[in-house]
Amino acid sequence: MDDFELACKGLYRALTIREKYMRLAFQRFPDTPSQFLRKIEGEQWKPEDQVLPVFTSPPKSGEDPFCTKDFPPNLGYVARMKDGVIYVYKDAASADKHQPLNHPGPDLVTFIDDMNFLIALIAQGPTKTYTHRRLKFLMSKFNVHEMLNEMEEMKELKKNPHRDFYNCRKVDTHIHAAACMNQKHLLRFIKKSYRVDADRVVHVLKGKEMTMKELFASLNLHPYDLTVDSLDVHAGRQTFQRFDKFNAKYNPVGASELRDLYMKTENHISGEYFATIIKEVASDLEDARYQYAEPRLSIYGCNPNEWTKLASWFNKHRVFSPHLKWMIQVPRIYDIFRGRNFVPHFGKMLENIFLPIFQATIDPNSNPELSVFLKHVTAFDSVDDESKHSGHMFSTKSPKPEEWDIVKSPSYSYWIYYMYANIARLNQLRKERGMNTFQFRPHCGEAGAVTHLLACFMTADNISHGLNLKKSPVLQYLYYLAQVPIAMSPLSNNSLFLEYNKNPLLEFHKKGLMVSLSTDDPMQFHYTKEPLMEEYAIAAQVFKLSTCDMCEIARNSVLQSGLSAEEKIHFLGTNYLKDGPEGNDIRKTNLAQIRMAYRYETLCYELNLIREGVMAD
Amino acid sequence: MDDFELACKGLYRALTIREKYMRLAFQRFPDTPSQFLRKIEGEQWKPEDQVLPVFTSPPKSGEDPFCTKDFPPNLGYVARMKDGVIYVYKDAASADKHQPLNHPGPDLVTFIDDMNFLIALIAQGPTKTYTHRRLKFLMSKFNVHEMLNEMEEMKELKKNPHRDFYNCRKVDTHIHAAACMNQKHLLRFIKKSYRVDADRVVHVLKGKEMTMKELFASLNLHPYDLTVDSLDVHAGRQTFQRFDKFNAKYNPVGASELRDLYMKTENHISGEYFATIIKEVASDLEDARYQYAEPRLSIYGCNPNEWTKLASWFNKHRVFSPHLKWMIQVPRIYDIFRGRNFVPHFGKMLENIFLPIFQATIDPNSNPELSVFLKHVTAFDSVDDESKHSGHMFSTKSPKPEEWDIVKSPSYSYWIYYMYANIARLNQLRKERGMNTFQFRPHCGEAGAVTHLLACFMTADNISHGLNLKKSPVLQYLYYLAQVPIAMSPLSNNSLFLEYNKNPLLEFHKKGLMVSLSTDDPMQFHYTKEPLMEEYAIAAQVFKLSTCDMCEIARNSVLQSGLSAEEKIHFLGTNYLKDGPEGNDIRKTNLAQIRMAYRYETLCYELNLIREGVMAD
Repeated sequence: MDDFELACKGLYRALTIREKYMRLAFQRFPDTPSQFLRKIEGEQWKPEDQVLPVFTSPPKSGEDPFCTKDFPPNLGYVARMKDGVIYVYKDAASADKHQPLNHPGPDLVTFIDDMNFLIALIAQGPTKTYTHRRLKFLMSKFNVHEMLNEMEEMKELKKNPHRDFYNCRKVDTHIHAAACMNQKHLLRFIKKSYRVDADRVVHVLKGKEMTMKELFASLNLHPYDLTVDSLDVHAGRQTFQRFDKFNAKYNPVGASELRDLYMKTENHISGEYFATIIKEVASDLEDARYQYAEPRLSIYGCNPNEWTKLASWFNKHRVFSPHLKWMIQVPRIYDIFRGRNFVPHFGKMLENIFLPIFQATIDPNSNPELSVFLKHVTAFDSVDDESKHSGHMFSTKSPKPEEWDIVKSPSYSYWIYYMYANIARLNQLRKERGMNTFQFRPHCGEAGAVTHLLACFMTADNISHGLNLKKSPVLQYLYYLAQVPIAMSPLSNNSLFLEYNKNPLLEFHKKGLMVSLSTDDPMQFHYTKEPLMEEYAIAAQVFKLSTCDMCEIARNSVLQSGLSAEEKIHFLGTNYLKDGPEGNDIRKTNLAQIRMAYRYETLCYELNLIREGVMAD
Repeated sequence: MDDFELACKGLYRALTIREKYMRLAFQRFPDTPSQFLRKIEGEQWKPEDQVLPVFTSPPKSGEDPFCTKDFPPNLGYVARMKDGVIYVYKDAASADKHQPLNHPGPDLVTFIDDMNFLIALIAQGPTKTYTHRRLKFLMSKFNVHEMLNEMEEMKELKKNPHRDFYNCRKVDTHIHAAACMNQKHLLRFIKKSYRVDADRVVHVLKGKEMTMKELFASLNLHPYDLTVDSLDVHAGRQTFQRFDKFNAKYNPVGASELRDLYMKTENHISGEYFATIIKEVASDLEDARYQYAEPRLSIYGCNPNEWTKLASWFNKHRVFSPHLKWMIQVPRIYDIFRGRNFVPHFGKMLENIFLPIFQATIDPNSNPELSVFLKHVTAFDSVDDESKHSGHMFSTKSPKPEEWDIVKSPSYSYWIYYMYANIARLNQLRKERGMNTFQFRPHCGEAGAVTHLLACFMTADNISHGLNLKKSPVLQYLYYLAQVPIAMSPLSNNSLFLEYNKNPLLEFHKKGLMVSLSTDDPMQFHYTKEPLMEEYAIAAQVFKLSTCDMCEIARNSVLQSGLSAEEKIHFLGTNYLKDGPEGNDIRKTNLAQIRMAYRYETLCYELNLIREGVMAD
């Protein structure tokens, strides 16, 4: 077998692996590579093969997004964790005998097998050479396309009435709820809350109630004097390569009490201020009309009640906006919780994270507030400093989650696998019940080992950051072939990991990877009132993006978001699921068909090469 | 004489030259270098030596900025041009005999002499070596300062109550009125005007009146379909190194009719739309509270009536805002006017530009609208594509302006000298009459020869751009020593002449040159609703500026602006004219005293070295 065939066969198998895991969890795998895979296998591709996530449609006019009626009935099933994964049983008896209902999930041994295959593939000489060359070719090809067709693309856009970059939809695909306001907004909010609520009891310290006045006095502060400098939540030069310092920036004036008061859902005022701030951010998005955001709220897995409390906050303060879609982020801080003895082992954390949702899925009326909240949740994130190294290698010999009782955290891949395995089974159950499903959209490739990107190639619908794709041509090419969406945040990277003009965003975009722009943490990184526009503006200026480039990125952001099918049809056109120019409605996206055709032809060409390589012998 | 002495003597003389021409025209030369020059000369520096421009104070409450009463009486003088410069005579008889009143102005022969000295100096080996080394030293010294004191500076700012980057004043020191709105704003305005005024006669074509509907129909356009793409006023990749294409971007949809209708003061609707747009921009600035702008309006010198028409537009539409200060830009397009035979020679252009103001200064009541307008004008600009080369060398043998009747434009230096010479004499007269004076703030060093920067070192209070200071260490060092303000616009440069991350802004700022940030043309370059904030945000992100850096740049922008003394006291503190920490009120500027002390000590050290060099023998 020559090098070309070897590489193609490896890439072919890699794609089938991703396809398999995407289907299993109701995540997306685009039609075009699917069609090529079927062609290689000599099978017919059928449109019914498409597997899609299910998102809750926006409430019809007059409908209450918090309505707790009309939930499906209790199935009476039992959900129980075994080896870190939650299984659903008909009843307690079958649970005891571990005879789960047939919800196909990934099998650990196969998964490790697939993973080891990919680990070997990304290190394989011929595949590295082949993918490196293809990526170089993609880059040059786009440069040529640009030189030849830039003016034609622009002409198409100029002829396109009533739509331009400003009124095409863009989604902030990666933003943490706790930092979704900008620093000036937070400052103004703190000052305003003090003017109104100085005598309100807002905090309890060692059993003693404290008014806001007393709280600020205890910190030696008067809100009137506060400035963005003293607030000190903005990432500066000091945070570069210092994720630890960056995390401390979440505390206004360095005081965790203020973080608790203003940026938490659980506190003495039931997270009222945090809810108000988020609603103000949503109202700014509604005013801007064409901007959407997907704020991420935390579930820590420290306690099974977290979900109920979070849902209660969501319902109590009615934190809903048609311009927001919710995500759940799970910080990978097992070591801290274990160290303080909050959890006995890693399995317990997984149980705390997933069991309540399984239960609310089996019997929605048992926790109506949670069931309402889950309707509006679209995805899970896994988040922490990726540059922290875990000594552990994930293999079939790894301790099971219930056996993982040491203080050290398991590795990134281990975390990712168990998050994914639970989400996949959960989605099976929810799909069966006609409920919305959840995507897996972890932070990945911001720092640390390239194996993170490998684990997510197998499991994630889309990822945030992806900087380290720079380091592995094989993975970069695979992310391209499978069109795995990447939510990039160059301003965040600029403060933390990589200087702006070294950011690979432009390179990835030119090669045809499916990138979007997102803010990550406006509170820490942005200066203006419109952080997402700031992000686009700076990218446009520094990378000299054309309108067509910007509109392509904006369209990508809608595609990869948790907006419902109805909304995507409204924002992108009826055929938004179709690949190529057919899927693009320029009247809605302001994206030139010339560009769409270029992208489509280029992808088909690359996939076809692989087909030729695989079929060679 | 050794190299060090030679360099110091040259630099000393260069500083005295600038000092002389600044005084002559009531422009600023800072105290610190003045004090060192006096010390070298063995003279006593006196605070009375300070020469300052005079700006009109903002109207007191209840006062009408358009009031045409209480102008000083007619002096009965006669103003007449001789050799390109306007002289003031007691009466027609003394004019005929050329016996002007004693308003000291520059003398052409001396000026050329001074200029030739500087031309030699910037090419002189030892001076080049010396200044290059000093600049390198200044750079390293700042880097050390930063490493040692960054945290201390930040601490000072954190302790400073109620003031941060957001609420310290910043002035957009370089912005063209015709492009002062952003593209989206212009688009919205065009659509709105059509909804309201479709049947209004807005244009006359070959004697035939046209309604707005007819005008748009003749362009095959319907405003409803217009987008920022079809509007096509934004600079894209196509404008890089193409100033010609950039100028065409001033025409919305490529139609000069629309430029006439929306961005001109003179048209069938008396510039009403343009006035409205500017008032909307002003109202945004007023809402933002801490932002000011100095829009530049054109006087072409094609016709002596231009001033009257412009003043009439200003008064009719009451285009006044406390957040705006006005400047007059004179495009250097003599060749075009001469080519079309609009003017017989260059002297006529100068006369058209300056004679009306001399006359309005002598007898304000002869043209009350112009007199009102002139009260609000603070400076003159000279503007055009600097990369165009003029074959002419300015010397004593150059034809006098009245003799310059060829179609070719005179050189940059020639233009600059005659602008300056007239402004200097005009300021003498106005100062005598207790009227406000005008600064000379030309575009300089955006492209073209370094001699442009030399001419402006002699004549300009401050310049716009200054990029080419990169190319001449001697001039860069002189701009530093004399603290010549430079209004930089890196986003504009990024679209036209220099990629963002190669912009020397950061380097100049670190070395201690007095730089400010400005937008140049928001319509062409910016994306967001707050162009000046966009400019600061991008600089902060790409150059990783600290809050202290940003506040220093903001303070520089106020200092170099045409804001009146009252306003500067209000925005910067009572001692704003003093050099060093004494001149800084951190409560107003949010600029650390540590930084101020560093800048002051560093400047004194450099000036002292020169003193030592000069006094060595």
